[in-house]
Amino acid sequence: MDEFTVRNEQYEAYVREHYASVRFMDTIGATITALRPGFCELSAPFRKDLGQQHGFFHGGIVATLADTANGHAGLTLVEQGQGLITVEYKINFISPAAGELLIARGEVLKPGRRVYISRSDVFARQNGAEKLCATSLATWAVIPR
Amino acid sequence: MDEFTVRNEQYEAYVREHYASVRFMDTIGATITALRPGFCELSAPFRKDLGQQHGFFHGGIVATLADTANGHAGLTLVEQGQGLITVEYKINFISPAAGELLIARGEVLKPGRRVYISRSDVFARQNGAEKLCATSLATWAVIPR
Amino acid sequence: MDEFTVRNEQYEAYVREHYASVRFMDTIGATITALRPGFCELSAPFRKDLGQQHGFFHGGIVATLADTANGHAGLTLVEQGQGLITVEYKINFISPAAGELLIARGEVLKPGRRVYISRSDVFARQNGAEKLCATSLATWAVIPR
Amino acid sequence: MDEFTVRNEQYEAYVREHYASVRFMDTIGATITALRPGFCELSAPFRKDLGQQHGFFHGGIVATLADTANGHAGLTLVEQGQGLITVEYKINFISPAAGELLIARGEVLKPGRRVYISRSDVFARQNGAEKLCATSLATWAVIPR
Repeated sequence: MDEFTVRNEQYEAYVREHYASVRFMDTIGATITALRPGFCELSAPFRKDLGQQHGFFHGGIVATLADTANGHAGLTLVEQGQGLITVEYKINFISPAAGELLIARGEVLKPGRRVYISRSDVFARQNGAEKLCATSLATWAVIPR
Repeated sequence: MDEFTVRNEQYEAYVREHYASVRFMDTIGATITALRPGFCELSAPFRKDLGQQHGFFHGGIVATLADTANGHAGLTLVEQGQGLITVEYKINFISPAAGELLIARGEVLKPGRRVYISRSDVFARQNGAEKLCATSLATWAVIPR
Repeated sequence: MDEFTVRNEQYEAYVREHYASVRFMDTIGATITALRPGFCELSAPFRKDLGQQHGFFHGGIVATLADTANGHAGLTLVEQGQGLITVEYKINFISPAAGELLIARGEVLKPGRRVYISRSDVFARQNGAEKLCATSLATWAVIPR
Repeated sequence: MDEFTVRNEQYEAYVREHYASVRFMDTIGATITALRPGFCELSAPFRKDLGQQHGFFHGGIVATLADTANGHAGLTLVEQGQGLITVEYKINFISPAAGELLIARGEVLKPGRRVYISRSDVFARQNGAEKLCATSLATWAVIPR
C-alpha cells in the first residue's frame, strides 16, 4: 500500500531471528524468500507429508504460510522491544494448492499503535506458473517483546 | 445445535476413510477422538517440532485442527457421493496453546444444500485441565465426491 | 461462557448511555432488550425501509445488530474510563432474515486486557417462532474512553 | 485483478435493476457511482442519522456499503438467470469513517461456478481527500434468480 516508516533499523535481523525460533516453520521446510518494510514472502517446497487427500498442499500449510507471512511483514515495522501476536485471521481458499512450491506474500495494511492489520496472498507454483490459491486478512496485537 | 438428519448410514466409515487419506494429519499425529452426526473431535499430542517460539503449539497446528474438525463434522452429514471443500474460515486466538494435548471440537451450524457452516473450539489440555485457546467459524461448499 | 468479573458497578448506566449516543440505532429503531455482564440483546421491528429485494431485513441491518450486540456485551465488562472499538468481525448468513422482529444476542468470549472477543447470533422472529439467521465472531480493542 | 469474462451482455441493466429493488440502499442514500465487469463503486453522503457516537458514519453503514459493493461487483459477472447471495464476509475497520462522503469499491477475486469471492475497500472523503477506513473479504453463493 503506502510507504512505511521503519522504527527499528535492525528490523531484518530481528525478523530473521524471530523466524528462526519458530520450530514448526523448520518442520515444514518454509523459508523467508523476500523481506522489506511492511512485506514478507515465504516459500515452501512440496513434500508428500504436507499433502491432503489429492496430493496437494494441505490447507493447514496454506494457512500457516499465510499467517506467518502476515506476522513477519508486521514485525518489520514494530519498534524495538515490541512484538506481535495473532489475534485472528480469515482465509479464503480460491483454487487447489497444487504445485511444486507454495509462496505466501504478506503485506501490512495498517501498522497501528495497538493493532496491526495485514493481508496475504498464497500462490502455488506449478511448472513455473504461479496461481493464486488463497487470500487472508489478519489482525495482530502489539505486545511488549 | 439441533439434531441432525443423517443422509448416509455409512457416514462413520466414510469420514474415517477420508481422514486416513489426508497425509498431513498423520504428519502432525492428530487422530479422531470422537465422532457423531454433526460433530467431530480431533486430538494431537504436543511435540517440539509442532511448536512456536515459546514452545507452545504453533498457530498453524491450531488452525489445522480447527479446520479439519469443522470439515469432518460436516462430512458426517453429507449424502453418499457428496464431499465438502473449505471455502473459508476465520479463527480467533484466545489464549496460548500451551499443554500436552490439543483438542478441536467441530460442530455443524447449518448443513445446507450448497453450503455448510460449522464452528469449532480448540482447547489445550495442561496437567489435565482444558483451556479454550481458539475458536473458528467456517464455510464449506458441497461438491460431488 | 464463564461467569464474568464486573469491573464497573455502574456498567448498566454506562452501556445504556453509550447506546443512546449512537444515532443510527435510533434511525433503525433498535433497542436494548436484555443486558447482563458479558451479554447484550438488541431487537428491531421490521420496517419496509429496512428491507432488501425480497422484503426481508437487509443484511446491513443484520450485521449492524450483530456488531452492536457484540460491542455492548463487551462494554458491560470494561473498567471505568475504558471503551471498546470494533477491530473487525466476520458474519455468516444462515437463513433469510424474514419476520416481524430481528433479535441479536451478543456474548463475550474473552474480555482481555488489550482485546475483547465476542460472538453473536441473530434471530428473526416470525409468527412468534425464532429462527437463527446469522452468526458473527468479533474482535474489539480496549481504548481509553 | 484479472480481466473478466462477461456472461450477460445486459449486466449493467440487471445490476442497476437489482440495486433499485433494495429498499435499504435508498433509505441510507447510497448510489452506484461506478460499474464495470467485476467492479462496483457505491457512494453515500454523510447524514447525522447515519452516525455513531462521535458523529462519524456508523460501522453498520460502512459494512452495508462494503457488502453491497462486493455483491454488485459479483452480479456484473453472473449468467442470465443467476443471482448471488451473501454467504459471509469479514470486515476490518482501519480508521474512523469521518467525512462528507463514504465510498466503497468492490472487486471480484474469483467468479467460481458455485462460489464467488470478492473484496472491497471503503474510503471516507473528508475535505476532498480519501482515507481508507475499512476492508472486507466476502463469499457469495451462486443461486438461480
